Amino acid sequence: MPVCYDIGSEPNVRPRWGQIVRIVVTGAAGFIASNLIPRLLADGHDVVGVDNLFLGKKAHLDPVLGNARFQFREQDLLPLQDTVDLFRSVQPDLVWHLAANSDISYGTTHTDFDLKGGTIVTYNVLEAMRLSGARQIIFSSSGAVYGEPTVMPTPEVYGPLLPISLYAASKLACEGLVSAYAHNYDIQAWIFRFGNIVGPNPTHGAIYDFVLKLRKDSSRLRVLGDGTQSKQYVYVEDCLDGMLHGYRAANEPLNYFNLSAEGHTSVRYMAERTLLTMGLDTVPIEYSGGSRGWRGDVPVVRLDASKLAKVGWKPRFSSDEAVDRAIGDAVRQLGASDRS
Amino acid sequence: MPVCYDIGSEPNVRPRWGQIVRIVVTGAAGFIASNLIPRLLADGHDVVGVDNLFLGKKAHLDPVLGNARFQFREQDLLPLQDTVDLFRSVQPDLVWHLAANSDISYGTTHTDFDLKGGTIVTYNVLEAMRLSGARQIIFSSSGAVYGEPTVMPTPEVYGPLLPISLYAASKLACEGLVSAYAHNYDIQAWIFRFGNIVGPNPTHGAIYDFVLKLRKDSSRLRVLGDGTQSKQYVYVEDCLDGMLHGYRAANEPLNYFNLSAEGHTSVRYMAERTLLTMGLDTVPIEYSGGSRGWRGDVPVVRLDASKLAKVGWKPRFSSDEAVDRAIGDAVRQLGASDRS
Repeated sequence: MPVCYDIGSEPNVRPRWGQIVRIVVTGAAGFIASNLIPRLLADGHDVVGVDNLFLGKKAHLDPVLGNARFQFREQDLLPLQDTVDLFRSVQPDLVWHLAANSDISYGTTHTDFDLKGGTIVTYNVLEAMRLSGARQIIFSSSGAVYGEPTVMPTPEVYGPLLPISLYAASKLACEGLVSAYAHNYDIQAWIFRFGNIVGPNPTHGAIYDFVLKLRKDSSRLRVLGDGTQSKQYVYVEDCLDGMLHGYRAANEPLNYFNLSAEGHTSVRYMAERTLLTMGLDTVPIEYSGGSRGWRGDVPVVRLDASKLAKVGWKPRFSSDEAVDRAIGDAVRQLGASDRS
Repeated sequence: MPVCYDIGSEPNVRPRWGQIVRIVVTGAAGFIASNLIPRLLADGHDVVGVDNLFLGKKAHLDPVLGNARFQFREQDLLPLQDTVDLFRSVQPDLVWHLAANSDISYGTTHTDFDLKGGTIVTYNVLEAMRLSGARQIIFSSSGAVYGEPTVMPTPEVYGPLLPISLYAASKLACEGLVSAYAHNYDIQAWIFRFGNIVGPNPTHGAIYDFVLKLRKDSSRLRVLGDGTQSKQYVYVEDCLDGMLHGYRAANEPLNYFNLSAEGHTSVRYMAERTLLTMGLDTVPIEYSGGSRGWRGDVPVVRLDASKLAKVGWKPRFSSDEAVDRAIGDAVRQLGASDRS
């Protein structure tokens, strides 16, 4: 395995947006990437999308599979050499690293899942960038790195960072790796700490669960927790706009932003609106109780998004609006068979 | 590999110091552990010391190898199953996890070294604790997690945590894992963010390097950087006292403290005092130049140790006193052949 680095041998030349030709998007068939890729192609970039299809669904990429500027690679990023080989053959200008586990609860019962699919995969991506000369990475972190913060809304400078899930621990580990690679190997990085992102092509999350459960059994809706958990939901188009804006506006070696929406939405609201949208508003909701949905769940999330606002970006949709739109998306994509 | 967890099946029974019988110490033949183990044995504990002898030296354990309460296991903690088997056979009450790479510069040229020997080994230790029912961990982190902080002295609540070395990235990743395990699996943890620890049985560091270099060639002393780097040096006995005090005084599910000394010491002072102690005070010092000793080096470190002071502990030795003592230790242990 090639691990020795000839320090100082590589030039400090970093492309900016207008010069970006080739982009590798990891987690390509997942929720966020499958919304991102059509935009990148429309902007004239060449995109190589990588996904092992463990959580992602190839059908999410149907709209772009025929595009001559898009290549899909079904590949796991856990073997380092395969990842290095991929990056050496593609020679990307920019890596949009979205591959990760997205199911916090799964990571609590399968304790090596986030370590492997999050931390080690991110190391592999960074190492492949170093060895292939790729210069820029956009990394999707999470507000979960703040654990259960005592300051809300929580700014980027909040400490201590004491995550309460292995998912969040892995995001923190990935941020540290991105930061160290940025400092030592002349890689420029943008880290975005997301709120809850919602919209078309979901692969997980409360709305997704509610719609699937109701499609299976529309006599009642079982909800984890007592319904009072409340978080900020960001519509995926806003999430993409926010990342693109932050990428263009910030030009430090290492840039980091919270990415969130205005307002916040309770699980109870989401459950009730899902029922309403599906025409099932008389169906009873059964709450499992407890303030958390599951172990490792942070029941109240408020991220301070003023740093990204200061460089000129605000989301179009409030948290409630994002949830309403995402319920519509999910019912259209997942709920049809139940209502036909 | 056993990864599924039956949540809620284990009782919340955590021992305190007087009840601790069996302690596993990782990195047993390393610098800090080899100073710690004689104290634990003198306090009446049974100790199992584990080390792969990659950085540690078995000779450091000579004083305790004949002690009936001590067992040494030459074992690598990177294979998970071996680590689980060890913990299941020992059934420790407390794990003192000191195993790690200690050479930041090595980790920059061998990029997977801290990931494997730090992050993955720490995951394995925590997973082995979960599966064997071990309830408490003391973890040695580092002030390096603060990166290059804008606030000095730097308190535990400082953010953002943007490490500039892969060593520091790994310590941050380990902290996140410890935090997540503490929250989800009923493991109680004490994290100590160390300043630079010095004293007998060194395996790395500036003093160690100076003495070895001079033993080889006493015509000059080459020093990395311009000599102005200045940090807080903690004598190892103070480090052990501080950890023991913090462990006894703090009883949250997750406890975290900076552990440092008063004052600070420049590299120039260390170089000059080493020459003086070796009777080589006319030997010229050649500085390589630059404000950092090496890539990933944080040139100025000031940790705020007031949190540990508030629970009743302060170090006996100032930073300069710690350095003076450690130079004496190193010259006695390493420098003899040069002077005979």
